Amino acid sequence: MTTERANASRAWAHWVPVLGWVRHYQRDDLVSDLIAGVVVAIMLVPQGMAYAMLAGLPAEVGLYASILPLILYGLLGTSRTLAVGPVAIVSLLVATGIVPLAEAGSAQYVALALTLALMVGLIQFVMGIVKLGTLVNFLSHPVISGFTSAAAIVIGWSQLKHVLGFNVPRGEFIEQVTHTLGHLGETNPVTLLIGLAGVGTLLFFKNRLGSLLQKVGLPATWVVPLTKAGPLLIVALGALLVGALGLDQRSGVGIVGNVPAGLPPLTLPQVDTGSLRALLPTALAISFVGYMESVSVAKSLASKRREKIDANQELIALGVANLGAAVTAGYPVTGGFSRSVVNFAAGARSGLASILTALLVALTLLFLTPLFYYLPQAILAAIILVAVAGLIDTKSFVHAWRYSKADAFSLLVTFFAVLLIGVEQGILVGVVVTIALYLWRTSRPHVAEVGRVGDSEIYRNVARHTVQTSSAVHMLRVDESLYFANSKFLEDTVLAAVADHPDIKAFVLVGTAINFIDASALETLEQLHHALEAVGVEMHFAALKGPVMDRLRTIGFVDEVGAQRFHLSPHDAMIALGAVAPTNGHQQRQTLPAYAPVKR
Amino acid sequence: MTTERANASRAWAHWVPVLGWVRHYQRDDLVSDLIAGVVVAIMLVPQGMAYAMLAGLPAEVGLYASILPLILYGLLGTSRTLAVGPVAIVSLLVATGIVPLAEAGSAQYVALALTLALMVGLIQFVMGIVKLGTLVNFLSHPVISGFTSAAAIVIGWSQLKHVLGFNVPRGEFIEQVTHTLGHLGETNPVTLLIGLAGVGTLLFFKNRLGSLLQKVGLPATWVVPLTKAGPLLIVALGALLVGALGLDQRSGVGIVGNVPAGLPPLTLPQVDTGSLRALLPTALAISFVGYMESVSVAKSLASKRREKIDANQELIALGVANLGAAVTAGYPVTGGFSRSVVNFAAGARSGLASILTALLVALTLLFLTPLFYYLPQAILAAIILVAVAGLIDTKSFVHAWRYSKADAFSLLVTFFAVLLIGVEQGILVGVVVTIALYLWRTSRPHVAEVGRVGDSEIYRNVARHTVQTSSAVHMLRVDESLYFANSKFLEDTVLAAVADHPDIKAFVLVGTAINFIDASALETLEQLHHALEAVGVEMHFAALKGPVMDRLRTIGFVDEVGAQRFHLSPHDAMIALGAVAPTNGHQQRQTLPAYAPVKR
Repeated sequence: MTTERANASRAWAHWVPVLGWVRHYQRDDLVSDLIAGVVVAIMLVPQGMAYAMLAGLPAEVGLYASILPLILYGLLGTSRTLAVGPVAIVSLLVATGIVPLAEAGSAQYVALALTLALMVGLIQFVMGIVKLGTLVNFLSHPVISGFTSAAAIVIGWSQLKHVLGFNVPRGEFIEQVTHTLGHLGETNPVTLLIGLAGVGTLLFFKNRLGSLLQKVGLPATWVVPLTKAGPLLIVALGALLVGALGLDQRSGVGIVGNVPAGLPPLTLPQVDTGSLRALLPTALAISFVGYMESVSVAKSLASKRREKIDANQELIALGVANLGAAVTAGYPVTGGFSRSVVNFAAGARSGLASILTALLVALTLLFLTPLFYYLPQAILAAIILVAVAGLIDTKSFVHAWRYSKADAFSLLVTFFAVLLIGVEQGILVGVVVTIALYLWRTSRPHVAEVGRVGDSEIYRNVARHTVQTSSAVHMLRVDESLYFANSKFLEDTVLAAVADHPDIKAFVLVGTAINFIDASALETLEQLHHALEAVGVEMHFAALKGPVMDRLRTIGFVDEVGAQRFHLSPHDAMIALGAVAPTNGHQQRQTLPAYAPVKR
Repeated sequence: MTTERANASRAWAHWVPVLGWVRHYQRDDLVSDLIAGVVVAIMLVPQGMAYAMLAGLPAEVGLYASILPLILYGLLGTSRTLAVGPVAIVSLLVATGIVPLAEAGSAQYVALALTLALMVGLIQFVMGIVKLGTLVNFLSHPVISGFTSAAAIVIGWSQLKHVLGFNVPRGEFIEQVTHTLGHLGETNPVTLLIGLAGVGTLLFFKNRLGSLLQKVGLPATWVVPLTKAGPLLIVALGALLVGALGLDQRSGVGIVGNVPAGLPPLTLPQVDTGSLRALLPTALAISFVGYMESVSVAKSLASKRREKIDANQELIALGVANLGAAVTAGYPVTGGFSRSVVNFAAGARSGLASILTALLVALTLLFLTPLFYYLPQAILAAIILVAVAGLIDTKSFVHAWRYSKADAFSLLVTFFAVLLIGVEQGILVGVVVTIALYLWRTSRPHVAEVGRVGDSEIYRNVARHTVQTSSAVHMLRVDESLYFANSKFLEDTVLAAVADHPDIKAFVLVGTAINFIDASALETLEQLHHALEAVGVEMHFAALKGPVMDRLRTIGFVDEVGAQRFHLSPHDAMIALGAVAPTNGHQQRQTLPAYAPVKR
């Protein structure tokens, strides 16, 4: 009975991780979570409004999306420090997806954002249930890096209009760039000044304030919240300045305007096949990109405390969080990088930190919205600009360029595809190019003729080491699994080697690096065996791995070629072929424990 | 001067391989080539007409496509035995591509076939020049097998109407099947009888006649031509029977009708952007599939005589052959399987055999066309039916099923996609599924914890062998290159291993099977190194390969982690970590010749 109950409670804790930590929760933890919750809320209120603006939505939507989703994630997420809510790239994707379907800011636009949140929620939830979290692995690091940098530029440019104070119609990136440059004369100087002051203040808070406060001797507990209060400060100062001087009327400074007070209303997203079909690519892009950003932050933070993240449970938690956004007038959310890092640094111990953040946002909505009336849009734009500037990742490109030209190429292709073709299509192009390059690389594997090192049992690449080779036996090591894309290459390589060495009696394929052989390659090996046999050359195999040998045995290839032609090592093959004399070491090898096939 | 001339002549021989063999040509060779040329012509005349009918073209187009293309291939091809001309699958693709654009048999239809030949010729020629022959490697054996079987069924079914004697409108396969089954009552009994007699005769020639003639004691030189004369015989008998009894008028037996006498006219293919764009997918499919069929036959025959095939020169030769077809009223051609095997078996020694075949087809067109007037279409259909029946490849499926479920799945998907979605789309679906399965497989590589075998230096999978492990050092071998699709898997695996073994001081990644590490995986390794460091576990590497180490050194990863953490072998790592005592064998290892990085 007790075991049963323990099992049941463990099962519950799997699906609702909060049950796992709540029992061990202590007073210390509460203090830490409270501090972290306050610090994140200080960042989230201005960011939420700014990212909603980026998504083409009213400012309050960003705050609505920062309540229920955070509470749900706090209960269901496996990360104790992930800070969920509106983030820049998801907001950009929302705008990209909805702008063609409805006018920005219209009721229809807001309604479609709810539909999108619903779709993202369902997609992520189902992916989590059927354990498809691994699908995001096909987004390689160069693709993510290229995409993020380009998206940051697209986002940044889209905010310039708020800092410059004139309207730029939404459209493709290139159109926006040319339109902006063509209308620089219409710049509103007061707006520009406010924007620049905002950017300057944020940069000071971000880069200088921390070390300054430490020099002054302020305790670390205070340094983190203060350095993160930059956005809040410029929001307050900006609203005060514009309101006091009437700059919105006098100088035409764009302001946020009326932000309705009160908790988010309950909403029912509109669901019609037309919208669903039109939004599907965007919903998929947000589900993948959002999840990926979220899970990579969560993992990197968890590993610092030797905690574990369950990738599929994360999908479920994010999915439910998005469903929560859909029914409380929000828009798609995910775990953001900067706020999560702050949450972690501020000492968050559990999902309660998230829940406390949500409560503070709710209080803001209840009591503080009048303060945002005069908030200049240029200030929100400044917050976005500084946030996305950090996303432009030239380091990864330099790194990839030095390490591998193929990776650097993938990165560049993705980057330019996002800028020139479009945000969603750009990722797709990047993924396809990356896969093609990978296949291309494995289709032309590294192949080395190997020879014996001195009198040892070790056989190495003749091009890298001084080795002895036999004129009667040609030994080739192929450093790749054998599969359809390289089976013709294998055939050509082996036939060329045999044609170039007319005197050889035997050819040995060394399989230390062959992890599997697919049906196409097996076919090629059978053909090679027969082709070599026909010209009087015996085909041998050395050092094939256990799982590979299991399969070759099952299919009868080992019997067809002859079991005596399969050798444990290159050295065993040379001895069997009479090309070298047995050594003492070889005797030892024979006493290896018996080989036992296992089922994987 | 002499060297220069020799070089020039070698360069010429590279582009025009005929120059390579013509100098060594002997009287013996001529006799062999003559016999092979005659035998292939005996097959080619009826097959050419039959395949033209399959492609929806007049019978003479099949003969036109069997003259200039064969001569051009004979001069430019690197295979001495490949028999070029109309083949079944390319003919099917031609029909699939042109039917939506023009009525079968119309002048426009014939004109578009020329355009297609021109496009295929250009595509193959350019692919050969820029050496893109390797692209066809991405057609895996299961995809080819599934495609060929399904295409054979589609082709076979499309010929039933000629044997049953009623019209079936062209359309999707399923439509054709239901229409045929719904109209079986309209079967023309005389036509059916002729068709069945044709099929029976061909099967007798194919399966029985050879052994019968050998028993009678006929010399082998005669057996081959006689067994291949089945099609010619039923063509002659069929035409005679229908003509003598007037079956075309009396019983409504469909006949070939007037085949214009004389050599093919010179033609200029029509080139307009509309047609080019509409035909492009078909042209690409024919270029790829045709080349692949051709080069695989050529290679398998060449290897039997230890000759070499130059894949890119083959593309050039096939391209020029198709250009030849385009200007002499033909349609796309390629190297066919059955005729090439016969050409080889009949003793063809050089491209001259092809040229002689072409001359015989030309003579047929000049003098024998009146004989084909009464040739029943049911006889041509019988020839196609028997030819494609051999293409249905159940053996590959059974083989793939036993060897690898993933390969069997690719095969089935391609097979059904070709039948249900379409011929060209089916290949594409198959290729995409195959690549996805491959990525899926490599994204979850085989991982083994390894331990020491007895007192040896050998470290093996703990699940397969009796080995000793250390409680302080966890040693994991990943049997796959590390790249974006499996880098998250690697991260999860390593972090889980570390979390599950809280006592370990060091983690060793064994890289015997890691052929490369891409930028994403490198990023993951860096993160893992830091994550493990943070929890007090040292990350070590053992037995990484030369090229992999070169790159890790260049990018600074080796210095970052510390060069002392990279070991030549698992045993070296254990010694360095103090987990085992050095052995004698280890001393020997230290005297390995110095490692020399090389540029690939």
